[in-house]
Amino acid sequence: MQLLESLKWRYAVKKYDTSKKVTQQNIDYIKEAVRLAASSYGLQPYKILEIKSPALREKLKPLSWNQAQITEASHLFVFCNAIAVSDEDVEESIELRAKIKEIEIEKIAGYGDFVKGKLHEKSLEELFHWSAKQAYIGLATAMNACAELRIDTTPMEGFEAKDVNELLGLQEKGLNASVMLAIGYRHADDAAQKSKKFRKSLDTMFQEIYMF
Amino acid sequence: MQLLESLKWRYAVKKYDTSKKVTQQNIDYIKEAVRLAASSYGLQPYKILEIKSPALREKLKPLSWNQAQITEASHLFVFCNAIAVSDEDVEESIELRAKIKEIEIEKIAGYGDFVKGKLHEKSLEELFHWSAKQAYIGLATAMNACAELRIDTTPMEGFEAKDVNELLGLQEKGLNASVMLAIGYRHADDAAQKSKKFRKSLDTMFQEIYMF
Repeated sequence: MQLLESLKWRYAVKKYDTSKKVTQQNIDYIKEAVRLAASSYGLQPYKILEIKSPALREKLKPLSWNQAQITEASHLFVFCNAIAVSDEDVEESIELRAKIKEIEIEKIAGYGDFVKGKLHEKSLEELFHWSAKQAYIGLATAMNACAELRIDTTPMEGFEAKDVNELLGLQEKGLNASVMLAIGYRHADDAAQKSKKFRKSLDTMFQEIYMF
Repeated sequence: MQLLESLKWRYAVKKYDTSKKVTQQNIDYIKEAVRLAASSYGLQPYKILEIKSPALREKLKPLSWNQAQITEASHLFVFCNAIAVSDEDVEESIELRAKIKEIEIEKIAGYGDFVKGKLHEKSLEELFHWSAKQAYIGLATAMNACAELRIDTTPMEGFEAKDVNELLGLQEKGLNASVMLAIGYRHADDAAQKSKKFRKSLDTMFQEIYMF
């Protein structure tokens, strides 16, 4: 029952220990977990930027409500959802599927058309939010992977997406900064770790539905 | 490195073994994992319905592209995002926070006002999608919890939300059917389990950003 223990252990870190860095081996594990996470139609319509440059992290900080984690965490990831998902994206995915599964592309072309049709039913705004929801599956999986490794995380929605998109040149790439994930190790002085986790009760969150 | 193994093991099941049921102990574990999942501002603006009635699952099936998992999986959950998040919702959350952390509510009232202000900045449509994204964190955590327990899952977006909302009377409750999760045990005949998992490469999904 390890995931539950990991979830009890984790909290959104406010202050990171800047002397402790996450190893590349662990980063690779976390990335692979995100890569394997479920995604609707297998499309994975998002991309994750790892901000390697300290100077760039300094520039991101004022765009992110000046939160210290932006510069102090060991690693900073920006989960970017695809602004749109085109027929070409679906075709690429179908090609990938055929190649990996070692089947002829013609055999799944009909499925590709089905997916295209379903995506055409969505408005541009719905597509935008749909791809962001897929990114959140990746985000949650990254947090679970980190917690399992006892690596701390701070999921961060608190930034000006428009400014971040501009700084990182995301729009030209068809991307939008959806959510950030700071990872690293909690500072011994981070008061938040002593604070009790608060969550709604099971009865508030879940409801059993019988016939009505 | 258990999560990664679990992610490799899982796939979206097409055909469930109807003779195998998930135990209540495991259901409780999965629910608790969802309850403890991270949520922006700690608001958890979603609710999960467990469809207990077989007759109701039969009614949901034609609204869900007639997918067999709706009736054949051991359990069916409907993740519903809050249509709106009101000042009262924030106040309830602040009360819960104060109670669990055993602090005076006045001490965190300012934080409550901050959260209200941030949510007021979002349009109704943005709020709707924001709460759905929070639900997806719960969804992903549920899938990871299931996979750890070697319980199969099918995340399902393929349904007519409008019809499902109407059938379940969700709008009156301020909810919207966002995504379903069927859980249970794969049938030995489910061809999908023999199919190779296909995913984008790490290089396609992740990009390291240096100064520019």
